[in-house]
Amino acid sequence: MTNSYAIAVLPGDGIGPEVVGCALEVLDAAEERFGFSTDRSTFAAGANHYLETGELFDAVEAQLRDKQAILFGSMGDPRVTPGILERGFILEMRQRFQQAANVRPVRLYPGVPTPIAELTPERCEMVIVRENTEGAYVGRGSTVHAGTPNAVAMQESLNTHDGIERVVDFAFRLALGRRKKLTLCHKTNILVAAGQLWQQVVAEVGARYPEVEVDYVHVDAMCFHLPLTPERFDVVVTDNLFGDIITDLGAVIQGGLGVATSANLNLDGSAPSMFEAIHGSAPDIAGKGWANPAGAILSLALMLGHLGEGEAARAVEAATVEVLGSLPSLAGADMGASTSELGSRIAAIVREGRA
Amino acid sequence: MTNSYAIAVLPGDGIGPEVVGCALEVLDAAEERFGFSTDRSTFAAGANHYLETGELFDAVEAQLRDKQAILFGSMGDPRVTPGILERGFILEMRQRFQQAANVRPVRLYPGVPTPIAELTPERCEMVIVRENTEGAYVGRGSTVHAGTPNAVAMQESLNTHDGIERVVDFAFRLALGRRKKLTLCHKTNILVAAGQLWQQVVAEVGARYPEVEVDYVHVDAMCFHLPLTPERFDVVVTDNLFGDIITDLGAVIQGGLGVATSANLNLDGSAPSMFEAIHGSAPDIAGKGWANPAGAILSLALMLGHLGEGEAARAVEAATVEVLGSLPSLAGADMGASTSELGSRIAAIVREGRA
Ligand SMILES: CC(C)[C@H](C(=O)O)[C@@H](O)C(=O)O
Ligand SMILES: CC(C)[C@H](C(=O)O)[C@@H](O)C(=O)O
Repeated sequence: MTNSYAIAVLPGDGIGPEVVGCALEVLDAAEERFGFSTDRSTFAAGANHYLETGELFDAVEAQLRDKQAILFGSMGDPRVTPGILERGFILEMRQRFQQAANVRPVRLYPGVPTPIAELTPERCEMVIVRENTEGAYVGRGSTVHAGTPNAVAMQESLNTHDGIERVVDFAFRLALGRRKKLTLCHKTNILVAAGQLWQQVVAEVGARYPEVEVDYVHVDAMCFHLPLTPERFDVVVTDNLFGDIITDLGAVIQGGLGVATSANLNLDGSAPSMFEAIHGSAPDIAGKGWANPAGAILSLALMLGHLGEGEAARAVEAATVEVLGSLPSLAGADMGASTSELGSRIAAIVREGRA
Repeated sequence: MTNSYAIAVLPGDGIGPEVVGCALEVLDAAEERFGFSTDRSTFAAGANHYLETGELFDAVEAQLRDKQAILFGSMGDPRVTPGILERGFILEMRQRFQQAANVRPVRLYPGVPTPIAELTPERCEMVIVRENTEGAYVGRGSTVHAGTPNAVAMQESLNTHDGIERVVDFAFRLALGRRKKLTLCHKTNILVAAGQLWQQVVAEVGARYPEVEVDYVHVDAMCFHLPLTPERFDVVVTDNLFGDIITDLGAVIQGGLGVATSANLNLDGSAPSMFEAIHGSAPDIAGKGWANPAGAILSLALMLGHLGEGEAARAVEAATVEVLGSLPSLAGADMGASTSELGSRIAAIVREGRA
């Protein structure tokens, strides 16, 4: 009997469909080689779909909920007011599906050019785990005297013991299977209420993982350490807003948005997890074949690992890394091959067992 | 009649006294050459002083208030609980003296090694203006059920129209005298209440400066643009927390903490402004002569400009840049000269009019 998985595919806008198309070709190859299958349902979602129908996450929630994983392209279009898709779809999915951990590997692959001078792959191999459902991302606040010179806006960050605990526990477990080092990133000297709760939870949970060494770095100092001494980090755990910021810096270090990938993990099995490249929809280059599909294909690798197809996950990652390392440029007209050519090249390596 | 200025000197802890000592030697040279004088009062403040006396900002507030400027070293020591000096001294000074704008030039000086590949001085010449008195730095929040699994911590960010307006207006004026471009950095798609107020104020104030082009970048995307396309920025204005984070990234780009400097400006003349290198007290290298005094000396240059001694400011900056560009390494044992040697070298260039 072959394993079969029900997955949802959301190509989205801009370059989303192109790079997800590549990921699906690689998925075909992986199924062929490793003998599993997927039952794929594709959903229209994103800016174009919203402009046509007014539909956001609500419209697909029920159909997505019974899937085992979601493969996501990218969303966004200048015609949609900023915030609508972010809050109405992406944050809504993270919340309703309790995708508690946003997991972003920051790994410099061999042969991939990094803008950081003298950085080598051996020195850059970490995972940033971002709390994905609370903190400042609750998006709540209030304004008095709006539109007058007396206006005051209060923005809230809500942090719960359980919300922090589940993601911290996940981060400790991750560290246990790696170099056994966990770093909390926060700004505890200023954000005292939230900071104390984070520190307490890390101390509490850490007591259950005595083998894991615990470190702490302020978010501002992180901007120093991440590019200059990345070897200091194994697993970094941080809150939603700080995670949003430092993972983009992580992507810079590993060679850019084209290479970076992420998982939005539901940790209790109550709803599906979601996997996506971290780049946006890049409407300016959509349709030109200039997008690098590596981020999307690496998100497929994360998805396969999550589904339990570890061998397939490793093969997809290795094939992607091999092709990445051979490119003259990581994106754009001088990438040396088109988006779909790169997808096919990676799929061929997977299919033929060359990785 | 020569101009004379009453200044307060707060050397602080660790390497603070060493680098401030260099700055004062350079100040002597500048006074000699440019014919002004300073009346300097030195105050003990910082971790050591706090451990001995329990005194924080309160204890010096009255004496500092009538000075025309404050030259600040660095504060901090592992023996003091994190947060005590930050909140009890630094933030207290920013608040009580209404130092509304934290101004940080991000400039890659010729000859200074940057960790960013292929970055050149022409491409990196901006000023980041950080709101310095409100936002999440009000440090207010509350926790219910602390110490239990039901704990919830709420952290507030308070933003007022006037608080934002004064710093935004300052940033526009700065842009007017430069390349006439202002970029707001925020996370308006998520932090809606605070984000809308910031956007409104930038639009309102911007109407008074029609020559200045206005741009917007999300704080996460800023982590990309700052290292990769710094030429995009002239003046960046941002809130207190985002400013804390992105200015550290700015310092990385310009070659590290050793080179970075900042002004905490009171904009209404009600209290003195404060000038400091952005590095910390670095207790591990204190007394070794390994600290680079450039940050402190460049903060002296900012102070001189603020006091109206523009020529002296330019000479101090030019002398510092000249010496910086000649160093084999920016800090540590292999800097090629000790802290005090570098101070004397820069002072000599200023005194002899070679810069
Ligand atoms: C699209 C946006 C809501 C999102 C975020 O801010 O979390 C993105 O920046 C990310 O990091 O996944
Ligand atoms: C020392 C600390 C309070 C301070 C801050 O967070 O503002 C520092 O990081 C800075 O950027 O000046």
